[in-house]
Amino acid sequence: MTIQVFGHKSPDTDSTGSPIIWAWYLSEIKGEAAKPVLLGEPNTEAAFMLQHWGLEKPEIITDVEDDAPVVIVDTNNPAELPANINGADIRGIIDHHKLVGGLETKGPIDIRIEPLACTATIMWKMIGKDLAQAPKAVKGAMLTCILSDTLEFRSPTTTQEDKAVAHALAEDLGVDISEYAAQMFAAKSDVSAFSDAELIRMDSKEYEVDGTKFRVSVLETTAPEMPLGRKDSLMASMVDVAKEDGVDQVLLFVVDILREEATLLVPNDLVKSVAAKSFGAEVSGDSVVLPGVMSRKKQIIPNLKV
Amino acid sequence: MTIQVFGHKSPDTDSTGSPIIWAWYLSEIKGEAAKPVLLGEPNTEAAFMLQHWGLEKPEIITDVEDDAPVVIVDTNNPAELPANINGADIRGIIDHHKLVGGLETKGPIDIRIEPLACTATIMWKMIGKDLAQAPKAVKGAMLTCILSDTLEFRSPTTTQEDKAVAHALAEDLGVDISEYAAQMFAAKSDVSAFSDAELIRMDSKEYEVDGTKFRVSVLETTAPEMPLGRKDSLMASMVDVAKEDGVDQVLLFVVDILREEATLLVPNDLVKSVAAKSFGAEVSGDSVVLPGVMSRKKQIIPNLKV
Repeated sequence: MTIQVFGHKSPDTDSTGSPIIWAWYLSEIKGEAAKPVLLGEPNTEAAFMLQHWGLEKPEIITDVEDDAPVVIVDTNNPAELPANINGADIRGIIDHHKLVGGLETKGPIDIRIEPLACTATIMWKMIGKDLAQAPKAVKGAMLTCILSDTLEFRSPTTTQEDKAVAHALAEDLGVDISEYAAQMFAAKSDVSAFSDAELIRMDSKEYEVDGTKFRVSVLETTAPEMPLGRKDSLMASMVDVAKEDGVDQVLLFVVDILREEATLLVPNDLVKSVAAKSFGAEVSGDSVVLPGVMSRKKQIIPNLKV
Repeated sequence: MTIQVFGHKSPDTDSTGSPIIWAWYLSEIKGEAAKPVLLGEPNTEAAFMLQHWGLEKPEIITDVEDDAPVVIVDTNNPAELPANINGADIRGIIDHHKLVGGLETKGPIDIRIEPLACTATIMWKMIGKDLAQAPKAVKGAMLTCILSDTLEFRSPTTTQEDKAVAHALAEDLGVDISEYAAQMFAAKSDVSAFSDAELIRMDSKEYEVDGTKFRVSVLETTAPEMPLGRKDSLMASMVDVAKEDGVDQVLLFVVDILREEATLLVPNDLVKSVAAKSFGAEVSGDSVVLPGVMSRKKQIIPNLKV
């Protein structure tokens, strides 16, 4: 049976590219039938990556069958995976997020989690010399994933390893990193086609602090004026999204990749208090700029206080 | 703060030796203050390893403090770890068991789980060339762990990697594997000092099948006549152990390492039925021999039926 390789729901670049990389490795190098699949529509940056490198968009699946062989990449959180994930035959996990618990495997399997910025960087280490046999498109996906997750090395999650691997890949492929990253970020920044609710849910994780449930949403962009120009309707939409998703409050951070700062929308006193307690920010209007804040994982989630 | 490295409760050889190996690596190679600790008294084989290689017995701890830095080896099961494990600052996990879920980390950390017979084999791969700098005692602990977990390569959990690493270590150390393994197994087989309840709990994991809770206990020995000579009192003790530990039934498998078979004690009709359904064994008396059965992980647990 073909192994399905997938990342999390709401596929960003890493969760779209890493399954493609690993399915190539399993099938072409390890000789195991494998294919990448997606758990949702890829975001605009991921779609750009597919188009740029001539990669086929992986099939989108909604659930996995009992005992279906799968490899999970870029997450270990059951909430971000198909409902029947623990019914599947999980063959491997490759990830760079904190262990949240909840996944179970039927036997001992290969699990590799490392505190790097990007899943693709871990794969680069695991694939080793065999990467020489990879087609350009696979290497291109790898480079795109790293530039995406590190925001072209600006994110504080960036490690020396991520950086070194990206530079090696760019040289091998003859890619000018800053030029290519600018194209990627432009693709990610074009959010005109999305509804407010879609924008809020696009890159979002649920997180609970002292009994208050948040949906912590991030929009990384080189054109912050686009989402910020829709501030009022985004804030109105937050109420509905929170209700539908069973959380108490949406927090929306618009991350300006080039200025290296985030703007937090402040629709009410709860968020105003969160801004003050978490980031020492004094809020006067309905938004507040948080200088240097770029990473939900390293800067937002660990500091969140109610 | 010093990182505490530990395995599971009821430390066997791998759970005693692997913390010693990894604490050496962290402190001597990585320059991070680290020490091995134990969550209980080491078994007789582990004690033999310490004595044979001149290793100090690690301190035994009962719990971990909030935010104490720890590395977990040879398990990922919270039930086999200190009560406050999720309050600690888990820095790494190195293991070769199935993922059971339940452990949580505060951030992304290094996690490496591989389907090899022994944690020490995974460490050998991770340490790489730096192992050249290890003292003989650390390499000796590594070899002992592998010979113990593979039952000198007889267990079906044994992989080519475990075998190759053990042979390389034995050559490096000038150890005759079969002679040394015989000493190890003789140490493990001397169970005269233990009470029946201690024997039952010595190498034991809880496992639930269709609502029935079992304590699945294994005694690996080259002298099966020792525990089997105490069969009646062991079976009497099972009732008390089951009651105290809140399980429905103890299953005790006496694994004869040299004959490569297990003897299951059959105190009642429930175990008789388990023997029939799980292993196709027809039981006439109060025990039954299961030819070729040596591994709880590969042969007993996956086949258990009520």
